[in-house]
Amino acid sequence: MKAHYLAIEAGGTKWLIAIGTTEGKVLEEIEIKTSSPDVLMPQVNRIISEFESKYKNIKGLGIGTFGPIDINPSSPTYGLYLNSTKTAWTGFNVVDYIKKIIGSRYPIYLDTDVNTAVYAEYSLGAGKGKANICYVTVGTGIGGGVIMNGKILKGRLHPEIGHMNVTTSILEPQEHFSVCNFHENCAEGKASGVAMAKRWNASPDEMPSLAWKIEAEYLGQLAMNITAAYSPDCIIFGGGVMQNNSILSLIREAFKVHVNEYWSLPPLDSYIVKSKLENRAGLIGALLLAKQEPSS
Amino acid sequence: MKAHYLAIEAGGTKWLIAIGTTEGKVLEEIEIKTSSPDVLMPQVNRIISEFESKYKNIKGLGIGTFGPIDINPSSPTYGLYLNSTKTAWTGFNVVDYIKKIIGSRYPIYLDTDVNTAVYAEYSLGAGKGKANICYVTVGTGIGGGVIMNGKILKGRLHPEIGHMNVTTSILEPQEHFSVCNFHENCAEGKASGVAMAKRWNASPDEMPSLAWKIEAEYLGQLAMNITAAYSPDCIIFGGGVMQNNSILSLIREAFKVHVNEYWSLPPLDSYIVKSKLENRAGLIGALLLAKQEPSS
Repeated sequence: MKAHYLAIEAGGTKWLIAIGTTEGKVLEEIEIKTSSPDVLMPQVNRIISEFESKYKNIKGLGIGTFGPIDINPSSPTYGLYLNSTKTAWTGFNVVDYIKKIIGSRYPIYLDTDVNTAVYAEYSLGAGKGKANICYVTVGTGIGGGVIMNGKILKGRLHPEIGHMNVTTSILEPQEHFSVCNFHENCAEGKASGVAMAKRWNASPDEMPSLAWKIEAEYLGQLAMNITAAYSPDCIIFGGGVMQNNSILSLIREAFKVHVNEYWSLPPLDSYIVKSKLENRAGLIGALLLAKQEPSS
Repeated sequence: MKAHYLAIEAGGTKWLIAIGTTEGKVLEEIEIKTSSPDVLMPQVNRIISEFESKYKNIKGLGIGTFGPIDINPSSPTYGLYLNSTKTAWTGFNVVDYIKKIIGSRYPIYLDTDVNTAVYAEYSLGAGKGKANICYVTVGTGIGGGVIMNGKILKGRLHPEIGHMNVTTSILEPQEHFSVCNFHENCAEGKASGVAMAKRWNASPDEMPSLAWKIEAEYLGQLAMNITAAYSPDCIIFGGGVMQNNSILSLIREAFKVHVNEYWSLPPLDSYIVKSKLENRAGLIGALLLAKQEPSS
């Protein structure tokens, strides 16, 4: 009997629960609106049960979720959502809850949504064939996942690339503009989708070309920080902001100006690239995560 | 017969060639002034031969060197110094040269000096017992090495932490001050030992307290970038600039202001710490590197 795997992508606006194959192919998926754990998790429970009764040979479940969350399998609080603006989720343990549903029938693997996304891009997408990649998503916020030498980089908790420092651009009219509640000079505060919307008070297709130049200026600086931090083989940009047609080449230009020929790098059109799996990366990565061998 | 190991720390001003034990204990060492490869390498050759005739059971040689250099063992140019300001070294292959001396009698391991330093701090120093650490040296320049989950982080080439972005401090009189020839806003340009010397035109013990506050302001920002990039268990600062008595606590204060309670971190006096092995870290790390099992 062919093995199947369950995948959950837990996002801030919606959750996706899917069943798929070892090759990362999604067979069926169900979307539910994100609410609080007491409303949402019983729905998840029901969907898992339905998939279990239809697909008899489920071998694993992978979760890619918003953070901050404890993703260290050897920690006593593995699976616990940590303090954040999503207050309904703080203190809820998603791994414990799902373990109660599935028992020990198959293993659960948990990671952040950006980590499952980078894993998908590494396995099947824009980073395929490369050992060291960084995936940056520029959407509501800015987040990122990193693979070094084929392994997802975790550290004590997990990287939060969006909170690296960027310098106010000379193109920027409002010098101290930032939508980050904590940092005046982080990439997320200056260049997230929310930052763009607030700065220009317009929808993306109504924004002037200056908007995209400023955006690229900050993302180019972020790409420079990423290069200094990880020396990756490529940097993959995804997320809603990357839907704009000119942004990718503008980021390359800004990056080039900031790096100023310091590093000898691969050609920029193969070094700074767009996500291939786009908004499917997180879910597909969760599916691929589910087929790992249990760590001993 | 007890096994011995050779270690070379190749620095910009001096090279150290040492013999030691598996426990990282240096038994003898010889210092030579850095010059060009054609002058220096024959001296290295002679010293290795002397150690070989005295210590009969040498099992490996570890090198920690200045960069940029190709440290990928599977690369055809493994051991080659890349383009940098040290023009005499550009294009010289240190591994090839030493292999001609020692043949296949024992293996050679090569890494950057900051990578051997972080390996020493991880094994025997301020990072002992931790899985994820970052070592930053603030001397002539600013460099760093990273260990994630017990492994040295390399990437395509190697990280260059000192070239991450920092924002001009409000304490800073000269807004566009930087000694980096490439970057106006990198940590090395604003906060290396050379930057301090040029900014204040004074020796470290004659600098005003403002000098150290500005220095700490930039290093605190760098520590924030490092936290965002790697989520390490601790950040270890070493190098000449860290000899100052007040700098460590000033860095912690600046870091706290910049992070602004965004991350829940370990207590800062165990998170931002001083190097334990100090200027011995690079050499001891090279010695520890020499006793690795050959990679297959």
